Amino acid sequence: MKHLIGIEDLSKDDLLGLLTDADNFIEVSEREIKKVPALRGKTIINLFLENSTRTRVSFEIAGKRLSADTINVSSSGSSVSKGETVLDTVWNLEAMNPDIVVIRHKESGAPKFLADNLKNVSIVNGGDGMHEHPTQALLDCLTIQKHFAKAGRSLDGLKIAIVGDVFHSRVARSNLWAHKLLGNKVSVVAPPTLVPRGVAEVYGDNVSVTHNLAEGIEGADVVMCLRMQLERQGNFFVPTLDDYTRRFCVTEKLLRKVAPHAVVLHPGPMNRGVEISSDVADGPRSLIGSQVNMGVAVRMAVLFKVGRGQLHE
Amino acid sequence: MKHLIGIEDLSKDDLLGLLTDADNFIEVSEREIKKVPALRGKTIINLFLENSTRTRVSFEIAGKRLSADTINVSSSGSSVSKGETVLDTVWNLEAMNPDIVVIRHKESGAPKFLADNLKNVSIVNGGDGMHEHPTQALLDCLTIQKHFAKAGRSLDGLKIAIVGDVFHSRVARSNLWAHKLLGNKVSVVAPPTLVPRGVAEVYGDNVSVTHNLAEGIEGADVVMCLRMQLERQGNFFVPTLDDYTRRFCVTEKLLRKVAPHAVVLHPGPMNRGVEISSDVADGPRSLIGSQVNMGVAVRMAVLFKVGRGQLHE
Amino acid sequence: MKHLIGIEDLSKDDLLGLLTDADNFIEVSEREIKKVPALRGKTIINLFLENSTRTRVSFEIAGKRLSADTINVSSSGSSVSKGETVLDTVWNLEAMNPDIVVIRHKESGAPKFLADNLKNVSIVNGGDGMHEHPTQALLDCLTIQKHFAKAGRSLDGLKIAIVGDVFHSRVARSNLWAHKLLGNKVSVVAPPTLVPRGVAEVYGDNVSVTHNLAEGIEGADVVMCLRMQLERQGNFFVPTLDDYTRRFCVTEKLLRKVAPHAVVLHPGPMNRGVEISSDVADGPRSLIGSQVNMGVAVRMAVLFKVGRGQLHE
Repeated sequence: MKHLIGIEDLSKDDLLGLLTDADNFIEVSEREIKKVPALRGKTIINLFLENSTRTRVSFEIAGKRLSADTINVSSSGSSVSKGETVLDTVWNLEAMNPDIVVIRHKESGAPKFLADNLKNVSIVNGGDGMHEHPTQALLDCLTIQKHFAKAGRSLDGLKIAIVGDVFHSRVARSNLWAHKLLGNKVSVVAPPTLVPRGVAEVYGDNVSVTHNLAEGIEGADVVMCLRMQLERQGNFFVPTLDDYTRRFCVTEKLLRKVAPHAVVLHPGPMNRGVEISSDVADGPRSLIGSQVNMGVAVRMAVLFKVGRGQLHE
Repeated sequence: MKHLIGIEDLSKDDLLGLLTDADNFIEVSEREIKKVPALRGKTIINLFLENSTRTRVSFEIAGKRLSADTINVSSSGSSVSKGETVLDTVWNLEAMNPDIVVIRHKESGAPKFLADNLKNVSIVNGGDGMHEHPTQALLDCLTIQKHFAKAGRSLDGLKIAIVGDVFHSRVARSNLWAHKLLGNKVSVVAPPTLVPRGVAEVYGDNVSVTHNLAEGIEGADVVMCLRMQLERQGNFFVPTLDDYTRRFCVTEKLLRKVAPHAVVLHPGPMNRGVEISSDVADGPRSLIGSQVNMGVAVRMAVLFKVGRGQLHE
Repeated sequence: MKHLIGIEDLSKDDLLGLLTDADNFIEVSEREIKKVPALRGKTIINLFLENSTRTRVSFEIAGKRLSADTINVSSSGSSVSKGETVLDTVWNLEAMNPDIVVIRHKESGAPKFLADNLKNVSIVNGGDGMHEHPTQALLDCLTIQKHFAKAGRSLDGLKIAIVGDVFHSRVARSNLWAHKLLGNKVSVVAPPTLVPRGVAEVYGDNVSVTHNLAEGIEGADVVMCLRMQLERQGNFFVPTLDDYTRRFCVTEKLLRKVAPHAVVLHPGPMNRGVEISSDVADGPRSLIGSQVNMGVAVRMAVLFKVGRGQLHE
C-alpha cells in the first residue's frame, strides 16, 4: 500500500508511467456512460482542510468514475474545530477502513507526516501549504505532452517559464520537480520577494531566475502563470498590486513580441487582469480548459495506482 | 444538448409533457428499490451558490434515483471566495465533462448567461435571484393537476391567487409564466410595495392585482402563499411585520369565509404565523407535503430530459 | 417501520441482537470489495445539525457499504437558518421518500419528537443534546465484548468506570442504560459539579459515584474516558482546567497502580493531556481505534435493521 506525497519522490519512469495511464483514462470521461468498475467497493475520503472547489470536485469525479465510494470531509463542521490533532482525525478515519485518504492541508508536510504514521491507508496529497501539489504538476505535464505531441515534439526539450508568486506556490514547486526529472529548462520569473531562496540550488542547473518578465518568457514554449495568492500577501511582498500587475501580468501583446508560439497554463482560480490578461486566458494559446480536463484523468490514474497498491512497487 | 432556464422559454406542450413525464416518475420513489438506471454513468453537479436545503436535496435525490453520479458544490469552501468569476467556475467544472450543472445563484440571469457561454453542458436553473425557479413552478403545477384530477377537473380553468412577497419571488414569476401558458386566471395579492411593476402587462390579461387579501382570494381554487423573504426586506417594503401579517396572513378563518374549497400551496421554508397560519399549513386543504413529494418526480423528469438532450428538440 | 432513539428503549435481547448483527458486518469492511447490496435503492439522509466528523462519516460509510444512497445535510447552508422549525425541515425531507433520517441535534429529545410526529420514515439518533448517543454505546459494548471474548470473558460481569464530564455526556447516559441492561457494575467518576443528579436512582443499584479518580477506577475492567466538553463549560463546572486535569486525567501511571488490567475507551475527539494522557491513548490498553472500527459495523447493523423495519418487531 503506497502513497503519493510529492513529485520529488517519483522517478522519471514513475512520472511518465502515470502520464501514460492518465492518457488512457481520458476517454472514460468522453463515453456515454462515464464509468469503469476499477475501484468498485473501495472507499475514498476527500479530507479538504483548506478551501477548494476544483481539486476536490476533480478528485470526487475521478473516484466516482472509477466506481469508488467517495466521502467528503471539510474543515468547517469537522472535529478539527473541537481541538483534535490532524493525526488523531486521520487515525480515526483510518479505523473506518478507507482505502485512500486524499488530503489538502494548509501546513507543508502534513501528508508526509500522516503517511509516516499510518499503516493501513494510502495518502494522496491534494496540496499541502507551500510544499507540493503533485496531481496539479501531473496534469500540467499531461496537458503539455498532449499539446506538443500534435507537433511531433515530446515532453522533454522544452523551455518552461514559471511566472508570478512562486514563493507561496506548491504548484510551482511540484512543477519544478517534474521538469527537473524531465530535464527541461525552467525560467523562474518573479519579483525578488516572491522567488524562493536557493531555487536553482534545489531544483538544479536547468533553472534560471529573472525579475524581468519579457526576458524570462522570451522564446518560451510554455508559460505557466501562477495565481497571485492575495490572501497570503500581507503587505510585505509587493509594493502595490497595480505595480505587480504592470510588471508581471502576462498579456497577449507581450507574448506576441517575445514568445509568439508559447502556450499558456494557469492552475486556477484566475485573478483576471492581475497575473493574466483575459485576452491570453480566453485566447487560442490558452490550455487552461485542457488542464482541468486532464485533471480528472490524472486523478483517476493516481487513485487507480494507489488504490491497487501499485505505486512504487 | 439543451437547458432548462425558465418557464418563460417553454411552450404549453413542453410544460404539459414535463408534467406527464414527472407523473410517471412518481412511482419510482414509492418502490422498495427506488432506482432506475436511466442516467447511469452521467455526472450531475449541484452548484448551489445560495443557501438551500430542500431544493438541493431534492435534485440530489432525483439524480441518485436516476443512478447518476451527483456532486455538490456550495459557496462556502469554494473558489468563488477566492475571487473567481462564476463563468470561470462553471467553465472549469464544464472541463470535467459533467452532463448537467444545476445552478442556484443570487443574481437573476446567471443560469441564462452560463447557458449562452458554455457549449458542452446542460444548465438547469435551480433558482436565480428574483427571476425564475422553474422546477418549483412545475412541481406546483403537478401538485395542482393531480389534486384536481381527483375531482375530474383539469389544470386549466382554475383561479389561482398568489399571495405575499411577489416582488422578491422567483417562485411567483415562474408560476405566472406557467399559468399564462395554461390560460388560468391569476390574482396577485400583495401590498403595493411588493407587487412587481407592470405585472399584468408582462404576464397577460388574465392577471389582476389587488392589495386586499379577502378580495384577492375570493373564490380561488388555489391559494399560493409565498415566503416573506425577511432577509431581503430592509425596512422599505412593509411598515412592520405585524402590520403585514394582520393584513396578508392566510388563515383558515378567512379561507372558510371567502374561498371554502381552496387548496393551499407554499414553496417553503414557511414562516408560520407570518404569511401562513399553522391551521392552514397543517390542515386538510394544505398540499404542501405533496408539493415536496412531487418535487423529486419533477426533477427526475427534468434531469432525464436534459440528460438525454431531449428538451426543446 | 421503526426507530432507534435510545438504548433506554431497548431490551437486553435487542441490545445483544444488534451486537451480534454488527459483529457479522465487520468482515464486510475487510473485504477487497467493501459492499453488500442489502440496502440498494434505499435513501438515507444524514441530517447533522451539530458539528461532527467521525459520526457522520461513519454513518455515511456504513450506508454506502450497504449500497444505500446517502445524502448529507448540515446546519450551515440549510433552511434551518431561514427560520424553519426542525419538524418542518424533517417533514419536508420525509416527503421525498427517504427510508431513514439519521439526526444529530443539539436539543435533547429532538429525535424522539420527530419519531413521534412523522409516519413514513425511520429516525436514527446520531446524538441529541445531553440525552443519548445510542450507536456510540453499541460500538463501545461491541468493542468491550470482542476484547474480553479473547480472554473467555463475556460482556456481563464487568466493572466499568466512566470518568469525566458525565453531566454533559450523551455518551455516558447511553452507556449507563446499556450496562444497566447488561447488569454490569458502573462507577461514575467526576467532580461533584459534573455528576448528573440522581444518577444512581435513574440507572440502578449497580451504579456508584465517587469524586476520587483512584478510588473510582480501582480494579476496573474498563475505563471509559469522556471528552471534556470545553465549549460547554462556561466557568461554572471546574475551577480551572489545570485543576481538573490534575485530579481527573487518566494516566498510565495511575492505571498501573490501581487497575493494571484495565482497557481504556474514549469516544473522541480527544483532548490529549486533559482527560486522557497520550501514553494511555496510544498505549497497549487503548481500544480507541477498535471503537471507531466497530462504529462502522454497528451503524451498518442499525441501518440494516431499521431499513428493513425489523427493530422492535
